[in-house]
Amino acid sequence: MNVLIIGGGGVVGQKLAAALAARGTLRGQEIAKITLADIVDPAPVDGPMQIETTRCNITDPDSIAACLTAETDVVYLLAAVVSAHAEEEFDDGMNINLFGALNVFQRCRELGTKPVVVFTSSIAVYGGEVPDPITDHTFLNPQTSYGAQKAMGELLLTDFSRKGFLDGRGFRLPTISVRPGKPNRAASSFMSSILREPLNGQEAVCPVDEDFPHYYLSPRKCVENLIRGAEIAEEDLGQNRAMMMPGRMWTIRQLIDAMTAVAGPEPAKLIRWEGQPEIQAIVKGWRFDLRPEKSVKLGLQADESFEDNIRYYLEDDKPAG
Amino acid sequence: MNVLIIGGGGVVGQKLAAALAARGTLRGQEIAKITLADIVDPAPVDGPMQIETTRCNITDPDSIAACLTAETDVVYLLAAVVSAHAEEEFDDGMNINLFGALNVFQRCRELGTKPVVVFTSSIAVYGGEVPDPITDHTFLNPQTSYGAQKAMGELLLTDFSRKGFLDGRGFRLPTISVRPGKPNRAASSFMSSILREPLNGQEAVCPVDEDFPHYYLSPRKCVENLIRGAEIAEEDLGQNRAMMMPGRMWTIRQLIDAMTAVAGPEPAKLIRWEGQPEIQAIVKGWRFDLRPEKSVKLGLQADESFEDNIRYYLEDDKPAG
Repeated sequence: MNVLIIGGGGVVGQKLAAALAARGTLRGQEIAKITLADIVDPAPVDGPMQIETTRCNITDPDSIAACLTAETDVVYLLAAVVSAHAEEEFDDGMNINLFGALNVFQRCRELGTKPVVVFTSSIAVYGGEVPDPITDHTFLNPQTSYGAQKAMGELLLTDFSRKGFLDGRGFRLPTISVRPGKPNRAASSFMSSILREPLNGQEAVCPVDEDFPHYYLSPRKCVENLIRGAEIAEEDLGQNRAMMMPGRMWTIRQLIDAMTAVAGPEPAKLIRWEGQPEIQAIVKGWRFDLRPEKSVKLGLQADESFEDNIRYYLEDDKPAG
Repeated sequence: MNVLIIGGGGVVGQKLAAALAARGTLRGQEIAKITLADIVDPAPVDGPMQIETTRCNITDPDSIAACLTAETDVVYLLAAVVSAHAEEEFDDGMNINLFGALNVFQRCRELGTKPVVVFTSSIAVYGGEVPDPITDHTFLNPQTSYGAQKAMGELLLTDFSRKGFLDGRGFRLPTISVRPGKPNRAASSFMSSILREPLNGQEAVCPVDEDFPHYYLSPRKCVENLIRGAEIAEEDLGQNRAMMMPGRMWTIRQLIDAMTAVAGPEPAKLIRWEGQPEIQAIVKGWRFDLRPEKSVKLGLQADESFEDNIRYYLEDDKPAG
């Protein structure tokens, strides 16, 4: 069992690699090799199997061919240009999110080995005038270029699967919080910052009101779901290969209350409230009343509580000292 | 007012050009020029304004640039590789239906003139496990590569419109019947053949049962809707630019009864019934319980009866003699 993680240098890619390394098996087989590929050299990950890191530019088919080979059994395609970045730099978003994904899928087709491809989409495919709640049969109505590109990636994944070119599984990720590391160019970046920075004793800015509702999942559960996602039997997936990954709706106030419940009252005092219209313009188009049924039936899970998310951050990610 | 019809050599493109030429105006302005562009030289169309025909290959950006210029006010993008063809020749479908559409949209972006773009999608974007009825907010769940490529075209059209690169209007066409001319590689081709050939005194094969239900629109109403589609005020379209074009559901038996009501009992005797599993495999995935609300509200119309469709064919298209 050889696993390739494209976007292996990112937060989810690194955690996924560590989880796979600790687990040792995938789809009932021993993992012989994990390859972490990213646009810059991914940080190394320890494990008892062969673990390689490599650069890969998914806008370049040759670069993909160098790491995605006939020996690759499972491909995780996590690489993306995130929401605010794709909004500012339209061509970057098209090149990475649409053509990059297509290049990976075409490489699978060219190989003829029908690898399992786990593709991360986003709940940013939903929005606009579509009525609540969002179900498995709700129209994808993205309000951003990022969302549109992810929706196209889903259509390609399903069609390439139907044609037998690959065995695809696409998951619309909730906002992942508490993300470790630094803020990124996702418009949702603050949804981790306002917890992570205060938990680390630093100030953070909240650009929306405390009653802003959103749909969340912890990094730990996201990785568990991505592993489960690769293991679902193909015949259980149905024709459409893309589905919501389960999450849960909380308001900003509920996130902060959970932080206070776990870590005491000091962190919340480090949040400054500064409305940012350009961030609000993006995130207020996102949906939060989501009802995943298909993925829950297939064994994917949300967090039990946001206190859990806070605890996972403290256990897994909080920098020492 | 300069109008470019890409796919101007096809049945709908030719009828649209003739209707625009007869009408003389579009969006409240006199039409100065109509350009018919297609992969092979389109047949000439008569009219009081300048009417040109030209070859255009939408897989080649330079070829598009030669006919889509800063003087173009309205672009009709009708060119497509149809369903059964795109199913057999995957790369043809991707190159024309996805990349061809994208090339046209990118040309509009490059010009910076924000032309009106009327894009024909298809009800083949619907299907599978999604429950009836199909509404304006139903998940696009294509069961063919053609449907997937059209759904991606819609996402691009809406996103390019949101970014201000063009002013897009996408319409999911019902099956157009009675189409004049010869059978094509659409799996729906028989839905015209079983009427057109008998009305012309020729035999035709029906590959499905007489109770097969489907969703239809006459060529005449389709053209009227495409003209109305270009004229809708941009602010009335909403953020999502793609919608169903109205049609109506009839069974094969109802089509034949309408033909008999208009043209007498002889034509129906020329239909041979021969089940064709490969055609059935495609068309049985298509949906027929469609409830267009947005497009009806915007002034688009279905036919009153299938007898009308038969009469339109006899009036507009039946070969002389």
